[in-house]
Amino acid sequence: MTKNGKTGENITMFLFDQAFLQVKIEIEKALTGSPLIIREYLSHLSHSQGKLIRARSVLVVAQDAEGLIPEAAVLAAVAIEILHLASLVHDDVIDDADLRRGNTTVQKKYGKRTAVICGDYLLALSLKMLSRIEDKKEFHTSKFPDYVGRLCLGELNQYLNNHNTGLSVYGYLKIISGKTAALFEAAFFAGAVASEKNSMEIACYQKIGHCVGMMFQLMDDCLDFDNTIEQARKPVQSDYENGVITLPLIHTFQQDAKLKLQADQGKLTREEINKSVEKSNGLGFTRFLMERFNTKAMRQIEKLNPSDQQRSDLTRILELASGKAI
Amino acid sequence: MTKNGKTGENITMFLFDQAFLQVKIEIEKALTGSPLIIREYLSHLSHSQGKLIRARSVLVVAQDAEGLIPEAAVLAAVAIEILHLASLVHDDVIDDADLRRGNTTVQKKYGKRTAVICGDYLLALSLKMLSRIEDKKEFHTSKFPDYVGRLCLGELNQYLNNHNTGLSVYGYLKIISGKTAALFEAAFFAGAVASEKNSMEIACYQKIGHCVGMMFQLMDDCLDFDNTIEQARKPVQSDYENGVITLPLIHTFQQDAKLKLQADQGKLTREEINKSVEKSNGLGFTRFLMERFNTKAMRQIEKLNPSDQQRSDLTRILELASGKAI
Repeated sequence: MTKNGKTGENITMFLFDQAFLQVKIEIEKALTGSPLIIREYLSHLSHSQGKLIRARSVLVVAQDAEGLIPEAAVLAAVAIEILHLASLVHDDVIDDADLRRGNTTVQKKYGKRTAVICGDYLLALSLKMLSRIEDKKEFHTSKFPDYVGRLCLGELNQYLNNHNTGLSVYGYLKIISGKTAALFEAAFFAGAVASEKNSMEIACYQKIGHCVGMMFQLMDDCLDFDNTIEQARKPVQSDYENGVITLPLIHTFQQDAKLKLQADQGKLTREEINKSVEKSNGLGFTRFLMERFNTKAMRQIEKLNPSDQQRSDLTRILELASGKAI
Repeated sequence: MTKNGKTGENITMFLFDQAFLQVKIEIEKALTGSPLIIREYLSHLSHSQGKLIRARSVLVVAQDAEGLIPEAAVLAAVAIEILHLASLVHDDVIDDADLRRGNTTVQKKYGKRTAVICGDYLLALSLKMLSRIEDKKEFHTSKFPDYVGRLCLGELNQYLNNHNTGLSVYGYLKIISGKTAALFEAAFFAGAVASEKNSMEIACYQKIGHCVGMMFQLMDDCLDFDNTIEQARKPVQSDYENGVITLPLIHTFQQDAKLKLQADQGKLTREEINKSVEKSNGLGFTRFLMERFNTKAMRQIEKLNPSDQQRSDLTRILELASGKAI
């Protein structure tokens, strides 16, 4: 389907399912069709694609009132997922991780050197794709490298706070705002820019993206304490074993000074931690904060005067992020 | 000094020395004035600035016939040096290097995790700066991430050819075309774009940049075999000890099959290698190739109808790259 753009040119438009399929094909193409020398390593990554919630976000944001999505948004969605992949490849180097989504990591299979280079290559590739959609809008500054910068600072902040049992709720939210939410914000921004929304709308979408990212991370934090689900989805080491103190536990430490002391002395078993988190309702507290981000996001959605379909699609992204929908 | 740009706006212009000083100040500012959380690590890098030959290249290219340099070129020069720094920080992770220009590397001082993140951050920072000068020209595709991609592929290619004593001259030139020359090409491209040269001129400058980069790497390869100079400038492990087979040695292996066999069996001492390289005139062969790149570059320079000053400045960059000037 084609449509006339603002400057009169013909724009190819997709329905959501078509666009999403196209995104999957293009990611696969970018990885398995990469230059010969790097192809083996990037092809390895194509086996472990997740649910592509960031790409879904780009497409949902880019939908017009008739549910049509411009081709530029497909490109943006691919770029955002590749940016995400770049960050995962470097994360695995940083965390010395062996497994990711059930597959051997690049750093484990091919070594840290190769993984550092592959991450750099993917980062450059995604920024190249993203710069194409920004030029289209003649933006004067490029925001995407900013998001990458925020992502890096969030990662660093998390690493510096490893094993910090005294981390405050505010401090933690600041970390995940960079580590996780920046990329969701980038996805929402990309979807809005690719579909030529106005600057008020772009600002709204960025705020929604931030909330979605925060909810997504807090949901992930809860999963780490929910043993049944955890075993299914996270077959590797959990956050706590990696020294990462997440919100449910921060809340628990604030309720129980003795427990914090024991943790500082390295005397806590995983079982004791789980029990204490349950007792102090750490998961309830985390879900309460998630709800606040949800409310904030809903308020921004209403500001956009969405059609029923748009409201329903955006709400579905919120549900995916908060684990209410799978 | 100001001048009217093509679209009538006022452009601040600098003489070379002013511009170069400004570049140094801005690099320092970018590193020591970075966000608090990453400042310590980036400030550490500000101690080990080199001769900034890439920044010099940007400025020389951006000079007009009166020797004036637009402000955008200063920004571009800073960005190119920061991009270079990003690649060095990741290189040191990859090579497990302890020292760089006489200073402890980030990876040695603060660990590999921090170094991976710092490199990513610097990469994003430099691409952000570069995207600003590209938007100015309303380019439809962004070339800088492409250069980063080529750099990554060059690095990977070199790594995959570690200890490969059968590497051909062509294969080696291809490696360094990515590993080193891509960034010089990016510098020349950046200088040309920042000073709003036309597309024929931009293409010429890119070719010159490629030649400068090739010469720069080949000169560095020679230094590795020139013991006196080597000791002064490269206090760490040499290429051969790191498994990197460079051109003087490739030429030598091609002349002496027995030597190659000994190398494959790990039976060669550094002294034997130096002797053989001398005997087969490996350095002479390398300098012969450098001369060819020099001639190529000079031909492109003449195509630009340069003023005497511009010709002299560009020639000086060629001399710096080939070690004829310090």
